[in-house]
Amino acid sequence: MRQIPVIENVLSANDAIALENRERFDRAGVVVVNLMASPGAGKTSLVLRTIEALRPLRVGVVEGDVASRVDADRVAGAGVPVVQINTGGGCHLDAPMLRAAIQELPLAQLDLLLVENVGNLICPAAFRLGEHLQVVIASLPEGDDKPLKYPALFAQADAVVVNKIDLAPHLDFDRQAFRRLVTGLNPRAALFELSCRTGEGLSDWAAWLRRFLNRGTGGVGHVE
Amino acid sequence: MRQIPVIENVLSANDAIALENRERFDRAGVVVVNLMASPGAGKTSLVLRTIEALRPLRVGVVEGDVASRVDADRVAGAGVPVVQINTGGGCHLDAPMLRAAIQELPLAQLDLLLVENVGNLICPAAFRLGEHLQVVIASLPEGDDKPLKYPALFAQADAVVVNKIDLAPHLDFDRQAFRRLVTGLNPRAALFELSCRTGEGLSDWAAWLRRFLNRGTGGVGHVE
Repeated sequence: MRQIPVIENVLSANDAIALENRERFDRAGVVVVNLMASPGAGKTSLVLRTIEALRPLRVGVVEGDVASRVDADRVAGAGVPVVQINTGGGCHLDAPMLRAAIQELPLAQLDLLLVENVGNLICPAAFRLGEHLQVVIASLPEGDDKPLKYPALFAQADAVVVNKIDLAPHLDFDRQAFRRLVTGLNPRAALFELSCRTGEGLSDWAAWLRRFLNRGTGGVGHVE
Repeated sequence: MRQIPVIENVLSANDAIALENRERFDRAGVVVVNLMASPGAGKTSLVLRTIEALRPLRVGVVEGDVASRVDADRVAGAGVPVVQINTGGGCHLDAPMLRAAIQELPLAQLDLLLVENVGNLICPAAFRLGEHLQVVIASLPEGDDKPLKYPALFAQADAVVVNKIDLAPHLDFDRQAFRRLVTGLNPRAALFELSCRTGEGLSDWAAWLRRFLNRGTGGVGHVE
């Protein structure tokens, strides 16, 4: 009988590059966060608020968009190193795109690298970038049923941020219902309710991030 | 010299089925609208408001979601025929999915079929379903820069609906800037500003749809 070769645990091309990215981040001592959300949930606003809240820690940013450089321009205004990736129609970032982007960043001088993914609650979930932490940002106007309808990203996130809580008086968003859905999918996820507009709730989010920065990059991880 | 065969205008597998769907819709005399938007922009709310506004015209609905049947349950409450498609992780509807769904609908008894695509501003743009009209729904909380950042869908839509205008006093959305971006990408698109919550602006949208229903399905078209 002919022996059929069985090859196990072969990394996909993307995951192999994600692992290289990760090793590079660890050598540089920078913690990398992949921020994912629907269009308009407030990813760039959270990036700007996080840079501000963590000063004097050194933050770098990678902006992912289908087209345009408006987000990178906003972030550059905050005086931090930023690279814009335009996917040219692509619906998510992948590890090779991030590898190209970090050539342009002074990784060893950074404490934290925030990667703003393309606005999409579905496709980014399937592509590891080499990040240490995955964060999904929801927002009150999107409604409290999003974890039910887009479960993958909520199930795998290390933290769920609910933005735009300043709009609560004008909307029917049920915070308890949302929290139950998230906990049902992902009991270990940290959950933060905040407003990038007013600043409410941002200190808890910043404190959570700071814990990972203080303990270095050894303790957190997605790409095994 | 050997003759190299050149095959032109071969339809992709998806487009071929889209064309079959389209012929089926035309034979049944039903106008089909593909509704596309970010998660939480208000697609299902617009479906419900449209059913109400067009009574006694007969509307059917196909609901597309990654997971869950919450939208179909909401629509079934309005007493119209509805089919839920769960893509099981897929980020858009395609023509074969719609072909399967319409087996379950009394097409010949309908004036209008509303197809609610998966919540995603990117991927649905690339998949024709056989629809007569493509509509993209934006909403005020998403921000006025979305046409710049997700141009494909805005460039090809027959109409752009801006939902949640009741939230205008609480947001910085610049309606003129949004309108300029849409017109720059797509001068022929109809543009409607409305609130599914308050009902404001819905009559113009309903009147626009009604025009296509009155003149039958011959005059409109995407799949050539």
